[in-house]
Amino acid sequence: MDLATFTANNVWMMVCTALVFFMHSGFAFLEIGLTRQKNTINILFKNIFIITVGLLMYYVWGFNLMYPGAFNGFLGFGGFGLETDAAGVTAAYANGGYTYWTDFLFQGMFAATAGTIVSGAVAERIRIGPFMMFIFLYVGIVYPIVGSWQWGGGFLSTLGNEHGGFYDFAGSTLVHSVGGWGALVAIWLLGPRIGKFDENGKSNAIPGHNIPLATAGVLILWLGWFGFNGGSVLSADPALTSLVLTTTSLAAAAGGVGSFLVSTLAYKTYDLTMFLNGILGGLVGITAGADLMSPNEAVIIGIISGGIIVGGIALIDRLRMDDPVGAVTVHLMCGIWGTLAVGLFGAKAGIQQFLYQLGGISAAGLFCVASAFTIVFGLKKIVGIRVDRQEELEGLDLHEHGMDSYADFRMNQH
Amino acid sequence: MDLATFTANNVWMMVCTALVFFMHSGFAFLEIGLTRQKNTINILFKNIFIITVGLLMYYVWGFNLMYPGAFNGFLGFGGFGLETDAAGVTAAYANGGYTYWTDFLFQGMFAATAGTIVSGAVAERIRIGPFMMFIFLYVGIVYPIVGSWQWGGGFLSTLGNEHGGFYDFAGSTLVHSVGGWGALVAIWLLGPRIGKFDENGKSNAIPGHNIPLATAGVLILWLGWFGFNGGSVLSADPALTSLVLTTTSLAAAAGGVGSFLVSTLAYKTYDLTMFLNGILGGLVGITAGADLMSPNEAVIIGIISGGIIVGGIALIDRLRMDDPVGAVTVHLMCGIWGTLAVGLFGAKAGIQQFLYQLGGISAAGLFCVASAFTIVFGLKKIVGIRVDRQEELEGLDLHEHGMDSYADFRMNQH
Amino acid sequence: MDLATFTANNVWMMVCTALVFFMHSGFAFLEIGLTRQKNTINILFKNIFIITVGLLMYYVWGFNLMYPGAFNGFLGFGGFGLETDAAGVTAAYANGGYTYWTDFLFQGMFAATAGTIVSGAVAERIRIGPFMMFIFLYVGIVYPIVGSWQWGGGFLSTLGNEHGGFYDFAGSTLVHSVGGWGALVAIWLLGPRIGKFDENGKSNAIPGHNIPLATAGVLILWLGWFGFNGGSVLSADPALTSLVLTTTSLAAAAGGVGSFLVSTLAYKTYDLTMFLNGILGGLVGITAGADLMSPNEAVIIGIISGGIIVGGIALIDRLRMDDPVGAVTVHLMCGIWGTLAVGLFGAKAGIQQFLYQLGGISAAGLFCVASAFTIVFGLKKIVGIRVDRQEELEGLDLHEHGMDSYADFRMNQH
Repeated sequence: MDLATFTANNVWMMVCTALVFFMHSGFAFLEIGLTRQKNTINILFKNIFIITVGLLMYYVWGFNLMYPGAFNGFLGFGGFGLETDAAGVTAAYANGGYTYWTDFLFQGMFAATAGTIVSGAVAERIRIGPFMMFIFLYVGIVYPIVGSWQWGGGFLSTLGNEHGGFYDFAGSTLVHSVGGWGALVAIWLLGPRIGKFDENGKSNAIPGHNIPLATAGVLILWLGWFGFNGGSVLSADPALTSLVLTTTSLAAAAGGVGSFLVSTLAYKTYDLTMFLNGILGGLVGITAGADLMSPNEAVIIGIISGGIIVGGIALIDRLRMDDPVGAVTVHLMCGIWGTLAVGLFGAKAGIQQFLYQLGGISAAGLFCVASAFTIVFGLKKIVGIRVDRQEELEGLDLHEHGMDSYADFRMNQH
Repeated sequence: MDLATFTANNVWMMVCTALVFFMHSGFAFLEIGLTRQKNTINILFKNIFIITVGLLMYYVWGFNLMYPGAFNGFLGFGGFGLETDAAGVTAAYANGGYTYWTDFLFQGMFAATAGTIVSGAVAERIRIGPFMMFIFLYVGIVYPIVGSWQWGGGFLSTLGNEHGGFYDFAGSTLVHSVGGWGALVAIWLLGPRIGKFDENGKSNAIPGHNIPLATAGVLILWLGWFGFNGGSVLSADPALTSLVLTTTSLAAAAGGVGSFLVSTLAYKTYDLTMFLNGILGGLVGITAGADLMSPNEAVIIGIISGGIIVGGIALIDRLRMDDPVGAVTVHLMCGIWGTLAVGLFGAKAGIQQFLYQLGGISAAGLFCVASAFTIVFGLKKIVGIRVDRQEELEGLDLHEHGMDSYADFRMNQH
Repeated sequence: MDLATFTANNVWMMVCTALVFFMHSGFAFLEIGLTRQKNTINILFKNIFIITVGLLMYYVWGFNLMYPGAFNGFLGFGGFGLETDAAGVTAAYANGGYTYWTDFLFQGMFAATAGTIVSGAVAERIRIGPFMMFIFLYVGIVYPIVGSWQWGGGFLSTLGNEHGGFYDFAGSTLVHSVGGWGALVAIWLLGPRIGKFDENGKSNAIPGHNIPLATAGVLILWLGWFGFNGGSVLSADPALTSLVLTTTSLAAAAGGVGSFLVSTLAYKTYDLTMFLNGILGGLVGITAGADLMSPNEAVIIGIISGGIIVGGIALIDRLRMDDPVGAVTVHLMCGIWGTLAVGLFGAKAGIQQFLYQLGGISAAGLFCVASAFTIVFGLKKIVGIRVDRQEELEGLDLHEHGMDSYADFRMNQH
């Protein structure tokens, strides 16, 4: 490939890397916005931990665990650290789509997002130490292994060769449901926040403390998805990248509107957080097939994602599980839906493909649930995962960090 | 055109699309920052509605209403939905500047901004239902029709062929004053907020509740304008894009400084919101001719925009109209000024061009005022547009959404 | 160079320019987040002043003071304003890396950051008028002169020709320590905030009022550094840009983790602001040699930067100096460290290079300290630089701006 096209490709991939990085601001805003003030520092600390330690782990071993080169299809390791020969920074690498360094950094930014998904679900009651250990194991080891099965050339990518096998364009399953399964297991073992359900099992809303930041978080995440999906083309191919951005944004809009309509009909109120989570649901839903769908199909996938959001949040509530930000509904349920949608709509639709999609979902799900259970249950037994009652009531900021998120906030007299 | 240049062009246009999308965060922050806490959820809801529904309308019919292909110059329609042949994703489309999909998405992000402008002006007192209907008609139909007159190849673009006719590079008139006229008509029919003017007609300042977010909003909008104006080159042509970014940023800076100086002289105080609105005024002012101006001319246009901001806000106040965020001044007055400036400065300056500019402003203005009046007056008569007194006093968040924007905000003792 | 590569290069440089511009949002958020509510408007005003006036000064004279063309190596001036011939917008300019306009705008966005660094250090007690005068002289004159010594082809760039002389890739010294020296001199002459040290010299923490915004500020700064360092390649060269982004992000992550570990060991608490400042320290530290280091070296530089943050903040405190946001530690100490690291690690390591680095640090330091002292001491004697006691206690927002940053902020009952 000529230098000019290679340069343009790599520019796009670097822009996408920056956008995926910026999603961590979005996740942080969303998560603090939908939770209580007294736990804000704690949540920010977890998010900063995830992006820094997550990236470092990916550099030390994660990248080579996820892309081990030729391997048995289940588990491989290419060695510690990063290293490339001269070809790694030329068009000889990855068909001129990007350089080795861009490859690492783009994938590294992805890796950390899986941890952030869990962070939201377990907010306001998990001990910070065990949470860091969980991230270490789940982001550092579980995520790259699952990724290797498909993106690293493992067994999922070679399922049914004649059809191209399991398909997950940008990670409805490999990123979002990996995070979502971890979240599900963690909130089950952790239990709900004090006050979330009363003795009769009635659910109480615990409103978030900063809806402007939550809203900004969702808009930043939508922006970041330009890079998350747009960069998953792995080049700046004009036809494919611009289609992907279009399907992605249409699904986001349709997810929001779907969720808005369903929740307004169901609850007779204009619920902003449902609207916001619908947007995220649409984004997660389109992620597996953003390059395969027409605009119409993207809108259908988005609307259904929006409906899933409203139903899923009600279901989680009815199951007496407590997911403060709706992470399981957004990332796991819509992640599964989006992965299945590849078998129902778009260029690959068909019963055979649908079965491959089910297979990929199941394989990832089984491994993630088993891993997450082992880790969280182990931590629970060995060190304990939940803060004590007084700490939970007074807030984790005070007890774990000795800080106040809005110290000096004076009430004004106007 | 070669693939490499086409790829680079399309990358730039996708980046610009992302930046214009991000402007919706900026508008949301600006609008909530300059209004009261009790209406925050409502404002965020309106903004989220606009970007999602606005984009979907543009996909279903707006794009083909604005770019109908060959038409009578006043009204045309290219059919529902999006569809392209193979050429639409190659350099054969739009001289290799971008693909059909990028074209749609970039223009779709623009469309929604016109609605957002109105949102700020009518904040804190409009009923959400009628507002959504207004957006449906104004963003869905009025905006694309006006746009078709110039950018779709309609009658404004063919005024006085020998001179090139009316000129509006990125939409001082076609975007900003379209929003501004709608805002003007709406606040006139809606009336001022309770307490804004006392019985003697004296104006009372109603301070905004979150100036940090308002400031961030302006900086995000400035950033977004890199895409708004930079993308309006419709390719990554190095000479033109880089000139446009330079004139845009210089006008923004000059607008801010102009407004700062004038307001400091006039009011003897360092008024941050004047400074901020001056920046926006400079940005709107340069938008019609960002590709035609030298840096010196950009600075002059910006400084005058800054002066217009100070004078315009005083004028609106004196007319007993209530525009909480200064939207009419920023988008309409500076939009008119910027459009006229194309006849006064830069590569196209001249009396003939000035008259074309006047013609374009008038045509757009008449149609927008007539349309907005019809829509808003109709809504007022049929369903009512204003919340009742109690709701306005207690806040729209409680009454329309049953939510609190900063629930659980505890006052700290430090 | 062919048009396609030139176009891709210029696209990247425009993206980087936008990212560096966005850093001003990050600085503003960080600075208000770490200070008290009563001074928020004042801080935002200063930041908006710096970006607007800083850019205008750079346009009127700064760019031609920093890049004067052939000159004596110490002081030169290329004339007022911006002007270019046809070659300035073609690949003939700057080896096809970017156009003249992109060159100006990218460098102009850099210039303003040096002023912003000072702003944080002097927050909550400096008078706004003298601060604006300081910025006028320091950003308008001192910064471009120091820059000319190296990037403008001056005497630092020709030190020891056979080795390539002093090296400062993106400005650990030329941007960050220029700001840092100014900050150091200013806080020394200004004295600490009332209440920071009691009569026995014991230091009291004055907590910031909005940690979510401070955290967002750091994430925005990290994002902006993609452009700050990535754009300092001065083209989109795939090998170099992607390496630079990788070393930059790894150093940021390592800086954060280093600071987190050291501060947790030292103070037995999970201190979020240390974590955040560690990230910034890592970013400043890698800036001088981001293009020379391997990933391993970047991580080492980052970890040491993180350690410097914890030690430096303690040292400043022990010296009874008051730097509310840690600007001297982050930008000056880590700036010096990063500049020296070029002599210790990476492609240029060696005793000779180390001495060149020391020379550059010293030359810049002497000139900056002398200039800053002259300016600040002069302002102190002539007009006074510190607000009076009552104003400091009641807040600068009320006294200098007559505004409240969170007017109408109601305490909720939940």
